[in-house]
Amino acid sequence: MKILIINGPNLNLLGTREKSIYGNINFTEYLNNLKSQYQQIEFDYFQSNIEGELINKLQEAGFSFDGIVINAGAYTHTSVAIADTVKAISTPVVEVHISNIFSREEFRHVSFISPNAKGTIIGFGLHGYNLAIESFLLD
Amino acid sequence: MKILIINGPNLNLLGTREKSIYGNINFTEYLNNLKSQYQQIEFDYFQSNIEGELINKLQEAGFSFDGIVINAGAYTHTSVAIADTVKAISTPVVEVHISNIFSREEFRHVSFISPNAKGTIIGFGLHGYNLAIESFLLD
Amino acid sequence: MKILIINGPNLNLLGTREKSIYGNINFTEYLNNLKSQYQQIEFDYFQSNIEGELINKLQEAGFSFDGIVINAGAYTHTSVAIADTVKAISTPVVEVHISNIFSREEFRHVSFISPNAKGTIIGFGLHGYNLAIESFLLD
Amino acid sequence: MKILIINGPNLNLLGTREKSIYGNINFTEYLNNLKSQYQQIEFDYFQSNIEGELINKLQEAGFSFDGIVINAGAYTHTSVAIADTVKAISTPVVEVHISNIFSREEFRHVSFISPNAKGTIIGFGLHGYNLAIESFLLD
Amino acid sequence: MKILIINGPNLNLLGTREKSIYGNINFTEYLNNLKSQYQQIEFDYFQSNIEGELINKLQEAGFSFDGIVINAGAYTHTSVAIADTVKAISTPVVEVHISNIFSREEFRHVSFISPNAKGTIIGFGLHGYNLAIESFLLD
Amino acid sequence: MKILIINGPNLNLLGTREKSIYGNINFTEYLNNLKSQYQQIEFDYFQSNIEGELINKLQEAGFSFDGIVINAGAYTHTSVAIADTVKAISTPVVEVHISNIFSREEFRHVSFISPNAKGTIIGFGLHGYNLAIESFLLD
Amino acid sequence: MKILIINGPNLNLLGTREKSIYGNINFTEYLNNLKSQYQQIEFDYFQSNIEGELINKLQEAGFSFDGIVINAGAYTHTSVAIADTVKAISTPVVEVHISNIFSREEFRHVSFISPNAKGTIIGFGLHGYNLAIESFLLD
Amino acid sequence: MKILIINGPNLNLLGTREKSIYGNINFTEYLNNLKSQYQQIEFDYFQSNIEGELINKLQEAGFSFDGIVINAGAYTHTSVAIADTVKAISTPVVEVHISNIFSREEFRHVSFISPNAKGTIIGFGLHGYNLAIESFLLD
Amino acid sequence: MKILIINGPNLNLLGTREKSIYGNINFTEYLNNLKSQYQQIEFDYFQSNIEGELINKLQEAGFSFDGIVINAGAYTHTSVAIADTVKAISTPVVEVHISNIFSREEFRHVSFISPNAKGTIIGFGLHGYNLAIESFLLD
Amino acid sequence: MKILIINGPNLNLLGTREKSIYGNINFTEYLNNLKSQYQQIEFDYFQSNIEGELINKLQEAGFSFDGIVINAGAYTHTSVAIADTVKAISTPVVEVHISNIFSREEFRHVSFISPNAKGTIIGFGLHGYNLAIESFLLD
Amino acid sequence: MKILIINGPNLNLLGTREKSIYGNINFTEYLNNLKSQYQQIEFDYFQSNIEGELINKLQEAGFSFDGIVINAGAYTHTSVAIADTVKAISTPVVEVHISNIFSREEFRHVSFISPNAKGTIIGFGLHGYNLAIESFLLD
Amino acid sequence: MKILIINGPNLNLLGTREKSIYGNINFTEYLNNLKSQYQQIEFDYFQSNIEGELINKLQEAGFSFDGIVINAGAYTHTSVAIADTVKAISTPVVEVHISNIFSREEFRHVSFISPNAKGTIIGFGLHGYNLAIESFLLD
Repeated sequence: MKILIINGPNLNLLGTREKSIYGNINFTEYLNNLKSQYQQIEFDYFQSNIEGELINKLQEAGFSFDGIVINAGAYTHTSVAIADTVKAISTPVVEVHISNIFSREEFRHVSFISPNAKGTIIGFGLHGYNLAIESFLLD
Repeated sequence: MKILIINGPNLNLLGTREKSIYGNINFTEYLNNLKSQYQQIEFDYFQSNIEGELINKLQEAGFSFDGIVINAGAYTHTSVAIADTVKAISTPVVEVHISNIFSREEFRHVSFISPNAKGTIIGFGLHGYNLAIESFLLD
Repeated sequence: MKILIINGPNLNLLGTREKSIYGNINFTEYLNNLKSQYQQIEFDYFQSNIEGELINKLQEAGFSFDGIVINAGAYTHTSVAIADTVKAISTPVVEVHISNIFSREEFRHVSFISPNAKGTIIGFGLHGYNLAIESFLLD
Repeated sequence: MKILIINGPNLNLLGTREKSIYGNINFTEYLNNLKSQYQQIEFDYFQSNIEGELINKLQEAGFSFDGIVINAGAYTHTSVAIADTVKAISTPVVEVHISNIFSREEFRHVSFISPNAKGTIIGFGLHGYNLAIESFLLD
Repeated sequence: MKILIINGPNLNLLGTREKSIYGNINFTEYLNNLKSQYQQIEFDYFQSNIEGELINKLQEAGFSFDGIVINAGAYTHTSVAIADTVKAISTPVVEVHISNIFSREEFRHVSFISPNAKGTIIGFGLHGYNLAIESFLLD
Repeated sequence: MKILIINGPNLNLLGTREKSIYGNINFTEYLNNLKSQYQQIEFDYFQSNIEGELINKLQEAGFSFDGIVINAGAYTHTSVAIADTVKAISTPVVEVHISNIFSREEFRHVSFISPNAKGTIIGFGLHGYNLAIESFLLD
Repeated sequence: MKILIINGPNLNLLGTREKSIYGNINFTEYLNNLKSQYQQIEFDYFQSNIEGELINKLQEAGFSFDGIVINAGAYTHTSVAIADTVKAISTPVVEVHISNIFSREEFRHVSFISPNAKGTIIGFGLHGYNLAIESFLLD
Repeated sequence: MKILIINGPNLNLLGTREKSIYGNINFTEYLNNLKSQYQQIEFDYFQSNIEGELINKLQEAGFSFDGIVINAGAYTHTSVAIADTVKAISTPVVEVHISNIFSREEFRHVSFISPNAKGTIIGFGLHGYNLAIESFLLD
Repeated sequence: MKILIINGPNLNLLGTREKSIYGNINFTEYLNNLKSQYQQIEFDYFQSNIEGELINKLQEAGFSFDGIVINAGAYTHTSVAIADTVKAISTPVVEVHISNIFSREEFRHVSFISPNAKGTIIGFGLHGYNLAIESFLLD
Repeated sequence: MKILIINGPNLNLLGTREKSIYGNINFTEYLNNLKSQYQQIEFDYFQSNIEGELINKLQEAGFSFDGIVINAGAYTHTSVAIADTVKAISTPVVEVHISNIFSREEFRHVSFISPNAKGTIIGFGLHGYNLAIESFLLD
Repeated sequence: MKILIINGPNLNLLGTREKSIYGNINFTEYLNNLKSQYQQIEFDYFQSNIEGELINKLQEAGFSFDGIVINAGAYTHTSVAIADTVKAISTPVVEVHISNIFSREEFRHVSFISPNAKGTIIGFGLHGYNLAIESFLLD
Repeated sequence: MKILIINGPNLNLLGTREKSIYGNINFTEYLNNLKSQYQQIEFDYFQSNIEGELINKLQEAGFSFDGIVINAGAYTHTSVAIADTVKAISTPVVEVHISNIFSREEFRHVSFISPNAKGTIIGFGLHGYNLAIESFLLD
């Protein structure tokens, strides 16, 4: 089973900023934990701050991987283009948000991606990625 | 670990109606599967079509259980009262929706409960309840 | 032919309040007239001020009766849950409103039930129930 | 008893287009059935695609007929002028819609005519005209 | 000086309906008064319930008359087409409303014609037409 | 003088939760204070989390009591049905809110009940009930 | 006949600024013309940039004058207080706007005063004051 | 205990206009009653139609008085400036409205002052001032 | 190949008004050019200022012609009725606008016709009709 | 004549996905057809999923090419930046959409680019590019 | 060079209230610093809580001073009248806000003055006035 | 003191396009002037049309520079991602806009960046960058 995890803008700063909110684990460490935990899964990981590069990666993996986990960060709320890609590819995509986007600014309550996703997981911190992977194992 | 699962209006019809959408498993069968799978957890289950009875049950369990999983059905989108209860109790509450509410009517895109929930899981069918339980085990 | 008539909140006050608007016939009297008029029909009648009890009754009758006539009163404008039940059951449901809801407050112009109903009859006073029954006889 | 039936734009195409939705009976045939069924009523019928001609006809009949049944088609949602005429004349007007306008595009959910009508009947197909006529007989 | 007065839908009913609001003078009588009062002016008068005929008349007179007084009735609030004609012609157009449209339904607060009119006179009853004519004499 | 006090959803939790906001007095204690203070008044008290039970109680008392004090909690903002009952009964109803609803979420700024209430008292904590009772004594 | 003319904020600058729009006549000169033209009328004139002083003047004259002509300038669009005064006094008030407010910014399309005015005259330049005075003579 | 009562625009007309709504007591008489009733309280009273003078008075009293009762009249709905002053001063401010603002025009449903007030009392007529004073005595 | 070109309100004024915007060619001349250019096509042309006559013509040609090119002028933005006709007929309809409606008033940004059209061509001046015809030749 | 064709995000997937909607021709093949058809034109082609690269290309070509045809895909509805570039360059830009964006989700009904484009062509499938090129030849 | 600084409502309280937000310098002290710093500039200073007095001062200085710096406080968000004055006068006006109005309540995000100002400076505390003065020196 | 200046999309065209609006100085020249003027400051400069590259640069400099001046161009109004970066980094960011965005299209009135910026400077042309730098020197 091949799973791609894609992180959008500013998620490369995890663990180095606003630690009271996001904790002090950076995503690389966390990913290593995930890999140990799910050794039967082959992981690929991609992070970019550029909207179109997220699209490129989704297109590249989206016809051969078994699952994609995406946290599109701020592009969640503004990118029709990423949402279109999620719809166009054949690999199912699970959407994850670390924080509870519904208790933040109103413009974060809307996700263009959600209607096209297999499912959405919101507010569980980094555990959200675990749950997303579990969701693929449950099928 | 004691976990309460609460289902709101019309979820008692699962498995007997619109099978193409909701599958032909009724929730009782599904709950038995869950119990087998998580034998270390003590489950309580409650379903009601009456908004205030859901509140009563949340209040009753909400200061002693370790976790509550709620699918408030249509009350998700209209009940400030249930949302207030979720905020008032001390047990963490995970919100589940079987279908992808974001690809349905616009009035289903809003959840009064979400801002007060520990987390929200949307669109994974009955697997959403599994993931909600996993989320309590991950803490 | 079995037909259920369901009345929602405050409709139990018909005939005892605001007589200039609603007339001085209470619904029990009116129902007796209907029964005399349509002796070939077996009527059941239910009134409740509790949203969830209306749902319970709809579910109970909704897979065996030939028709349901509902006047959900104020819940018409706020209850997604009742509307979902109307959609989930197999018995066709006709929606009735005694007064002309379109010449009253703007929040009364919206009915969650209408899109799921077989048809809607508005503004004919108690005659609306007659017309609803006629509509089942016309099929 | 003299009753006028007025049909608005595109209703002259009934029976010749989109038969799966509107059935294959054209309105002339249907009207003959109505006439046979209600021989005590003197019917007049008018159809026009021109908004102002509908107004002219309403004015012409609106001080002498006993009832008017109007299906203003698309003008329902855009014509303040027809709604004003319905209010200005003394003959009571019953509004009919063949399809369930509340399960179609949002701009069809609003009727300028409804607040001024004696009553509104929606979603019963051609039977709606029957019910409208019944409503005059019930008075 | 040649002045055209154009009245829109339902204004032909003036004096025969809702006399408590509109008074019991019909417009023909009123027009005769105007003609006596302003003998130096050559009047033309046109009334139609058909939007497009109002446009036809505006186009016909709109390049040769000295002034046009229009009360477009309900079309005021819905007709972009009439407003476009008012803009396209060279004769200045004064807009009149008999009643105070700002103290009526909200959809009557908007006039497509106003931005293109020479000026607008609202709420003075039939005197509004007098004032409109005075406005041409003041230039 | 007979006065009914009705509390809506979650107000049964007063004094046991979020004490920094609501204080540590539960409503039963508070009610005893009120009774001592106003010995000339016969008090009835009712709390329910179920919308329809609040309606039932309002109907039961609403034609014989001298005054009703209602804090409908979250139903304030969502219940057209309770508001309709307040309008239908003959006993005057005073609306109370413990917290300042105008400095909280926007959906709490709207009360369906207010237009039908004798008066509204907001933001004085439990003292609001005192003031409501005073308002009946002032008449 | 006693008529008060009230001008609101910035109208004291007429004739000294933006002459291409407002012309180069200041209001004092214009008022002198009016006085010559209507010698049978006793005029009072008041201008202030202070909202409350306009209210004071309206109250002072509003129970004894025969008519008031008001151009409230920018307060037209923001002052509920002036509109309330217009409603409270017994003298009829005619509202005038020099420019066509409907072809300017959207916030100028709304007048709080209009629903309470005897009538409204818009877009005729300074001639609007003439027409307002004529309207009192027509009664 | 020193209490200031501030009345905003048009409240100086109380008792002389629209007596069916506001009664025929003017505020001076009413204030004398209040003074007799609460002899332990030192009252100051201020009325102005000028928004900024209300601000001046609030600032003047707002750091030394024990309580302020304000009925800002129409400025309630439009004045951010007064609301800011209420927030800036240290004396607690209770907001009073004589009429039920929620059953009037929609623009009267919003109060900029409410979120900054100690509490708000609406719809009790002049008794509202009594209740406001009681609220200070209850602390 | 038979193609009908339909022009809506005010398009009969092309070439005689606002020449800086619309050029000085009237549509008859332009149509002659089109006919010379596309001699293999049989053209029919219809212009009316009356909404319902446009509907009549669409119905008349809409089951036998190979293509219809419509510029509904101002009715584009207000006529649900024309849009319904475009949907009801079997001939494909191409929508043309001479000017760039998206750089004009906001109410011109919406077309009821577009969702039902084969395609829409905007902003190319009279060349838009050429392109519409080309679009039929490309099929 | 030099013409640049620019395609935005996900248009590189044409012909390989959702063939029932978009057909099974990929854009490279289609471009070859265009080149054969219009041998007098020198074509340049650019596709990118990155918003800023589309801007870079527009700037690069936008002062020397004779025409640009752009299908900005999803960026059409979200990119003010691309729209600004279209306005800033001197080469005229024609906007093309393959599908009928007006019969899809509401957020696709808005194009930031349209007001700045020479013209817009919507809903003709790949033929839209042909028509765009024709539009340059017609000048 | 003559520069006028105008402060609106509640800014006279600077330094005596909410010191954690606004600091403990009152504006008079601050103004003395400015005067020392810019000895080549002749300063005038005006503060008022009365909207119309701010207008009077703007008119008085607005045709002779070289620059005006205005912080209209709460009137920024509600006063069309002040904005009109800023547009009418010939002296350029720079708008200053001490706090970041965009991170406060939504009604503070709108400034009627901004479109008419030479420029706007937001969020730099009292330094904003320095920057405003610098902006005049840069010309 | 190290200061980074970041310019967003299309600002590389300054001085070569629309010179009447933006002047004929390109930004490189202007930057040289700045460097001469503020020799005590070490400047870095970055321009990109790619949203994500602006984010990359902000992250790169955002933990070591003393100040950042950003003109995000069109991304100001659409990029939640850039706004999030501005919030995440520790270097204070001043936002500059050359033109008066409040007198342009409505979608330019909103800045996602402003709430997270140290301050915002709008409408002073290129002088805005000077003022931004001055703001850092004033601290």
